[in-house]
Amino acid sequence: MTAPTLLVLDADPPPRLGRLTGRARIVHTDEAGLADRLPDADVLLVWDFTSHAVARAWPGEGPRPRWVHTASAGVDHLMCPALAASDTVVTNARGVFDQPIAEYVAALVLAMAKDLPRTWEFQQKREWRHRESMRLAGTRACVIGSGPIGRAIARTLKALGVTAAIVGRTPRTGIHGPDDLDRLLSRADWVIAAAPLTDATRGMFDLRRFGVMQPSARFVNVGRGPLVDEDALAEALSKRWIAGAAVDVLTHEPLAPDSPLWQVPGLLVSPHMSGDTVGWREELGAQFVELYERWAAGRPLVNVVDKSRGYVPGH
Amino acid sequence: MTAPTLLVLDADPPPRLGRLTGRARIVHTDEAGLADRLPDADVLLVWDFTSHAVARAWPGEGPRPRWVHTASAGVDHLMCPALAASDTVVTNARGVFDQPIAEYVAALVLAMAKDLPRTWEFQQKREWRHRESMRLAGTRACVIGSGPIGRAIARTLKALGVTAAIVGRTPRTGIHGPDDLDRLLSRADWVIAAAPLTDATRGMFDLRRFGVMQPSARFVNVGRGPLVDEDALAEALSKRWIAGAAVDVLTHEPLAPDSPLWQVPGLLVSPHMSGDTVGWREELGAQFVELYERWAAGRPLVNVVDKSRGYVPGH
Repeated sequence: MTAPTLLVLDADPPPRLGRLTGRARIVHTDEAGLADRLPDADVLLVWDFTSHAVARAWPGEGPRPRWVHTASAGVDHLMCPALAASDTVVTNARGVFDQPIAEYVAALVLAMAKDLPRTWEFQQKREWRHRESMRLAGTRACVIGSGPIGRAIARTLKALGVTAAIVGRTPRTGIHGPDDLDRLLSRADWVIAAAPLTDATRGMFDLRRFGVMQPSARFVNVGRGPLVDEDALAEALSKRWIAGAAVDVLTHEPLAPDSPLWQVPGLLVSPHMSGDTVGWREELGAQFVELYERWAAGRPLVNVVDKSRGYVPGH
Repeated sequence: MTAPTLLVLDADPPPRLGRLTGRARIVHTDEAGLADRLPDADVLLVWDFTSHAVARAWPGEGPRPRWVHTASAGVDHLMCPALAASDTVVTNARGVFDQPIAEYVAALVLAMAKDLPRTWEFQQKREWRHRESMRLAGTRACVIGSGPIGRAIARTLKALGVTAAIVGRTPRTGIHGPDDLDRLLSRADWVIAAAPLTDATRGMFDLRRFGVMQPSARFVNVGRGPLVDEDALAEALSKRWIAGAAVDVLTHEPLAPDSPLWQVPGLLVSPHMSGDTVGWREELGAQFVELYERWAAGRPLVNVVDKSRGYVPGH
């Protein structure tokens, strides 16, 4: 029996794959070589989760991997109509990023509540400027995204005394549906975007939605850049429709040095790092190895993406 | 019956004292007028908690207030041997600052775990620099100070998944004694100083104690500046004995513009604002009014400071 061919899209070899020695023929490729190698692969591991090459190189009706795994929570960068229509199974890194991203959101929310960015600006200028800050306990958050990341964010904010409502595509116990969104946005001190990028969520944070928010509200995006109309966000901040924002994801990453977003007043920009705590690559590698062992043994995969929806359906 | 004389040390009138109209003869004084007015006062409200004038102006054996209240958690700024030896009762603002300070500590800890200060430095330079950050859950904190503030800090860190030990002067259930301090310091990822300033705590964070901490440890001071030997802290940071620090209180406040502490690498300085959330002055005023009503009715006061120890003894 020949070992299955595991094609890995990345320049750097992922950690932990050594455990698959003898059980997989591991072939590495970069974006340029992907189209040539895809037809011969049984499994594709998209380790470089910043790449959009899979959608371009996907062989359509031709020979193709039976399973694609991406080392990321979002699958927007690899989905294309032909992949969605095929019988190829797509899995994601569900679970690895939940707690780190929830902590990162708590860090941003607390930093804004306590006005830390301005404190450190004053420190650079050697200015002692006492201000009153905001008590976090008792405030309200609206978390958009009802997957494990959104739920971990809500859980962490609740642990800090925040009343947190979650909005998802499908209303269920503890999760509001899209019909409640505008009402919840209009009452929230904190609006946290943690939704997958799909046709239904692209550009959902537009001028109208920023207009619904309170002037004291702060907006955080840890989902995907294109959830947000970035021009609208800049306008809402400049006109003080909202009090502040922090974005860890942007429509174009890395953000270009000449982008005006670096200097929008009240906007904190971080380089897509919310989920990436020390050891994350090892965790992603170990998670893939576990999935591979299931797949090779003919057991059902977990973290299977609903390709028509663009995410792993919730419980 | 003449209303008691309530002397208020502050330039600005405290809020909420209107409720005492007719029940107290309210006299305001600044530091210069304090010594003249103290002998005629029944009650002294130290509203300006930054002032050290009480210790200087205290009348000793002469006529003096029967009760002194300070609108602060610490009483170090007003205690003097004559006041300690007298039968005058001293009360403090126990309770008002617990949750705000706990949130502030959580904000600093999370900001350091997620490396937010450097992220915002990079933003100013328009640099997109992805880094790995630290997972907070599962780390260890040592909180020095077992009063309501220290306990609220430990509770809040625990809600974020941190293992938090508390060290106090007297070991009791859930509280370590001073004998455990060095051992706990040597294992802590986070060392949080939230102790009152007393003879026993002054300068307790010295070169030896920073030397005991892990090179990855971070130190936070929200207690009083003189708990820390600031030269030793600067040296420990410069030599990378510890990974970082944040101080909200300093030995000399406001910190002078030419102080070298503004620019110690890895040191975050904030202007003694950790407990001061919007509405704090109203809360302090309301708390004093409630105490005054107890006192005027002859009921026992709460928040009574043990003047020999320098804080309100714990439960």
